[in-house]
Amino acid sequence: MAAIHPLDPIQPQEIRNAVLLLQKRFPQATIRFKVIDMFEPPKNEVFAHIQMGKKPSGSSDRRAQIYFHRDKSSVMSKAIVNVSQATVEKVEDLPDVQGPVDLEEWEAVHDACNSHPKVQEEIAKLRLPPGAKVINDPWAFGTDNVEERRRLFQCYMYIVLSDDPESNHYSIPAPISPVFDANTLELLWIDRLPLGSGSEADQETQPWLPTKPIEYSASILGDAYFRRDLKPLQIVQPEGPSFSVEKNIISWQKWRFHLGWTLREGPVIQNVTYDGRSLFYRVSMSEMTVPYGDPRTPYHRKQAFDLGDSGFGIMSNSLRLGCDCLGLIKYFDGWRCTSKGEPVLMKNVVCMHEVDNGIGWKHTNYRNGETSVVRDRQLVIQCTATLANYEYILAFVFDQAANLRVEVRATGIVSTMPIRSGIHSDWGTVVAPGVLAVHHQHIFSVRIDPALDGQANSILYEDCVPLADPESDPFGCAFKVQSNTITKPGGYELDLTKARTYKIVNSAYHNPISKKPVSYKLHALPSQMMMMGEKGFNRKRALFATKPIWVTKYGDDELYAAGEFTNQSREDTGLAVWTKRPDLVSDEDVVLWHTFAITHVTRPEDFPVMPHEGMSIMLKPSNFFESNPSNDVPRSSQAVHHSARL
Amino acid sequence: MAAIHPLDPIQPQEIRNAVLLLQKRFPQATIRFKVIDMFEPPKNEVFAHIQMGKKPSGSSDRRAQIYFHRDKSSVMSKAIVNVSQATVEKVEDLPDVQGPVDLEEWEAVHDACNSHPKVQEEIAKLRLPPGAKVINDPWAFGTDNVEERRRLFQCYMYIVLSDDPESNHYSIPAPISPVFDANTLELLWIDRLPLGSGSEADQETQPWLPTKPIEYSASILGDAYFRRDLKPLQIVQPEGPSFSVEKNIISWQKWRFHLGWTLREGPVIQNVTYDGRSLFYRVSMSEMTVPYGDPRTPYHRKQAFDLGDSGFGIMSNSLRLGCDCLGLIKYFDGWRCTSKGEPVLMKNVVCMHEVDNGIGWKHTNYRNGETSVVRDRQLVIQCTATLANYEYILAFVFDQAANLRVEVRATGIVSTMPIRSGIHSDWGTVVAPGVLAVHHQHIFSVRIDPALDGQANSILYEDCVPLADPESDPFGCAFKVQSNTITKPGGYELDLTKARTYKIVNSAYHNPISKKPVSYKLHALPSQMMMMGEKGFNRKRALFATKPIWVTKYGDDELYAAGEFTNQSREDTGLAVWTKRPDLVSDEDVVLWHTFAITHVTRPEDFPVMPHEGMSIMLKPSNFFESNPSNDVPRSSQAVHHSARL
Repeated sequence: MAAIHPLDPIQPQEIRNAVLLLQKRFPQATIRFKVIDMFEPPKNEVFAHIQMGKKPSGSSDRRAQIYFHRDKSSVMSKAIVNVSQATVEKVEDLPDVQGPVDLEEWEAVHDACNSHPKVQEEIAKLRLPPGAKVINDPWAFGTDNVEERRRLFQCYMYIVLSDDPESNHYSIPAPISPVFDANTLELLWIDRLPLGSGSEADQETQPWLPTKPIEYSASILGDAYFRRDLKPLQIVQPEGPSFSVEKNIISWQKWRFHLGWTLREGPVIQNVTYDGRSLFYRVSMSEMTVPYGDPRTPYHRKQAFDLGDSGFGIMSNSLRLGCDCLGLIKYFDGWRCTSKGEPVLMKNVVCMHEVDNGIGWKHTNYRNGETSVVRDRQLVIQCTATLANYEYILAFVFDQAANLRVEVRATGIVSTMPIRSGIHSDWGTVVAPGVLAVHHQHIFSVRIDPALDGQANSILYEDCVPLADPESDPFGCAFKVQSNTITKPGGYELDLTKARTYKIVNSAYHNPISKKPVSYKLHALPSQMMMMGEKGFNRKRALFATKPIWVTKYGDDELYAAGEFTNQSREDTGLAVWTKRPDLVSDEDVVLWHTFAITHVTRPEDFPVMPHEGMSIMLKPSNFFESNPSNDVPRSSQAVHHSARL
Repeated sequence: MAAIHPLDPIQPQEIRNAVLLLQKRFPQATIRFKVIDMFEPPKNEVFAHIQMGKKPSGSSDRRAQIYFHRDKSSVMSKAIVNVSQATVEKVEDLPDVQGPVDLEEWEAVHDACNSHPKVQEEIAKLRLPPGAKVINDPWAFGTDNVEERRRLFQCYMYIVLSDDPESNHYSIPAPISPVFDANTLELLWIDRLPLGSGSEADQETQPWLPTKPIEYSASILGDAYFRRDLKPLQIVQPEGPSFSVEKNIISWQKWRFHLGWTLREGPVIQNVTYDGRSLFYRVSMSEMTVPYGDPRTPYHRKQAFDLGDSGFGIMSNSLRLGCDCLGLIKYFDGWRCTSKGEPVLMKNVVCMHEVDNGIGWKHTNYRNGETSVVRDRQLVIQCTATLANYEYILAFVFDQAANLRVEVRATGIVSTMPIRSGIHSDWGTVVAPGVLAVHHQHIFSVRIDPALDGQANSILYEDCVPLADPESDPFGCAFKVQSNTITKPGGYELDLTKARTYKIVNSAYHNPISKKPVSYKLHALPSQMMMMGEKGFNRKRALFATKPIWVTKYGDDELYAAGEFTNQSREDTGLAVWTKRPDLVSDEDVVLWHTFAITHVTRPEDFPVMPHEGMSIMLKPSNFFESNPSNDVPRSSQAVHHSARL
């Protein structure tokens, strides 16, 4: 396995080897594997040689991280297995945490719920028409009790009226939610869902009142439903793509980076250089949480952590040619494991392609009409994660002006609850007959581990404030840029009234033109932070969601904003802990975290599938280069583009 | 001229007729025409029949608005000429305002400056090498004295070393700025530019210290300079575009609107309907101002109003096939006039084309992997305005989910000032040797005249706030949406801490599903407002720049946020005046104005031409439609898109 780069995603043979090694360590045990993934090497093992663009020297061992259960124990264990040295480096039992949801457990809970006699009894009371059936989405239980130690799932149930593979059962939510213990597959209780504007639910399940679901399935909708005036638009790249790929190392337009992938995060951008200069060690989606704003039981528990509870990688779609992107597409696969530890190929979980994003820059000499136009060609690394009803499209977008953008498109089907006809609710919008979509927040954390011209970086913020000095500024037109270096780990605020901008700087290097320290600035997305009160679990579990900017000293294995284990977590074990250390963070190996969000007040227009809601943040050079990095991009011309005038 | 739609841009024959009518009114006078443009009919003359999709009935007369001078008078006059009735409806002398800069006056000032002996004398002191020459950009003077009544231009001068038509003289600013009276073409004085970090300028013009300019001209840079690894990317639309065009009426994907164009605003989107339902009467860029944050004379006067002082339409580029957009392009022309009143064709000032913007929506049924993907096809109406050194790309973007986006890309060359080598400045960044780019703001106002299902609309804002009621929300997870209707004209704030969202509503119509009033919400761009203090002219002239949201009662001829005349204005005569009226604005014909901005802290990366800085706002339906308006878009398929896998 010498050819595997230290940062490469886990390989099937590594999964097999790790499984054998762990089995050898516990020869008597029956092991149920939950997650086997690549365990990233300590940064100092790999930084120097990968930043220099050298091939991995073999000095860095390949390791796997395994979450597993022994002999049906309810306690999850974690192992670090060194597959290069064929040793189990660490095993730890974790009695106090719940691991993420795994697919087989999820299926077991789903089946247990659907087939349980008590649940069947309730379903019978619905008196569904012949052919109708009921299915359920087991949800991570959330947290409403610090004493809870069972592994719980709340199952939200939906009625399926059609055999069509895309029939929209989310348009027909059923009024009950059974709660199961995933370890014992025991039904613990059945929550009845409130159907009115108040918090009370019916005492008894009532017969279902037939409603026509709102469908998105093309076959159900039928040909006549569709608009007919959309003409094809195709992307043609006659000379091939502008990128080159050497396993997971991508080169494109002076960018060079390693494209990693994990079950938790999906694509991970590592070891990023531009024109040979180091920019970032690692850029990744770190966590996200979706708290719902409905106080009524059982909805008060609805708070998904879509990375920590499940994972953007493991939930990734197999992408399809001509659907998810246009043009010339390079796909990347991933690997997961079964509960027996067998590797499972996840085909096409990441795609890479180029996009034309309109005009990149332009100037016309108005004296003579001479014009230079450069188009904004971009390289897009993209995945789609399906979290039950909902989809996130995560993209890392590189451009020719040395900007790196992280974009999330929220789409899919909003989480639906039943509501009685004619009733309306303060907590959401009726998006279809009998369907309430509760208002909620989506709160994301992107982790940026910078390495601007080296590892010793600082984070500072700049405020633009009026000079307000009548002596030197008699006309009151001047403003100054105040710079403040962050010296302590912690959470920090944006301030739009000052156009506050956070920058990553390397104070050891100065731009030869401007004489200012080299930097990349964060174009943050100012947004409403988590609304939930200080005492609530929603907030305690996700401190990252309360401030837009976080700064920590780099620590190996500190990748996830809310901590490693979020499922049924009682508190944040990530930033909440790491920011309490009295670390030095200026001119150090520092990490910048950005929290951004949308508060989604639902609309009928979001149903059945919602048009994407886009969010995007950007890392932009500032005093890093001596001039426009895209000044050398060939000018846009008809000879190349073959456009046509109408 | 019966075929001219009441909202069409002015036609050459109308210019000719208007000129003849005005000449007839002043038979003895020599008239110098500054601006002749279409004068929009009163809304109540046209609203009913155009909103109903009927052809113009001829009931609405076509009018031209003319700014002109009689017999070399320094006083500008304004006429409204009814070209349908062949009458001059109104003539007004405007002794107290300065009209916009016109091209011939600009050229006259430029030439007067360059050839003036005193200026020549200063240029001689620069001791430029043989072949070098000096040119200048006459700038609107700005305002620093309420008593000033002359028509002033401050000329910023640059050294040109090369005959190349794209040589970058902005990289070699000269240290003097002569000030001219445009009416007399008299040199009033010469400002010496401060070259150090303080405010003092050299007493005497010093010989130029040779510097190599930073160039963007492809021919100067030479072939070897350019990156060679960018492969062609072409857009192919084998079945033609999805839009249809009937003169200026555009139909695309259930959208139908009138594409207007004015010399001041550039493209104007009017009479917008979606699937036959009325949405907006008029959406337009209303004004923008660019105050520079340098207090030193003469820079304290630098405050461009790029619509009011010049105009996005009149400064528009003639767009070129294969450069400004890809695919199938429809161009639109405009007309301006010479000082003699002759019509001048402005070719291809607006382009229209379709764009694929990635995934529009997507859902995968994770139980079976069945996926529906709809791509985000967009219709883009775009122009580029060149304001001396700088470019704005303005686009109106329509999508299939009934969203309308207004996008501005700021690009071009930052305004440059000379700075002595080795000196740095608090007011800007040294972006090239000897070149200071002062920090500044770009503050835009977009005017949205809604007509959601009719003219009687209201503006409200919704705040998302925690419920904070331990009784009904014991876990502290609930939030509510508080709605506040605007009842008074005025300026209003955004509040990100509450995810405050402004909506246009028609309270007479309710969504049949959600039972909420039909509305469109504004996805605002929260930004730093104008920083300059209350006493300064920058602020007094542009009150619109101090608050993000403005609400007024509709008034005919109230289109420009800072008032009709901004050149050397002493105060805002737009929103500052209209919002003082005690108008009713709820369930009325109301107008929503949105101010957004960037504070541009300059970077060497912005030079020689800056990579575009994008800003965008969006109007999105909310409870307007019964479901996702793009649910009927054909699903994305390889059969249509012909992508290729690598």
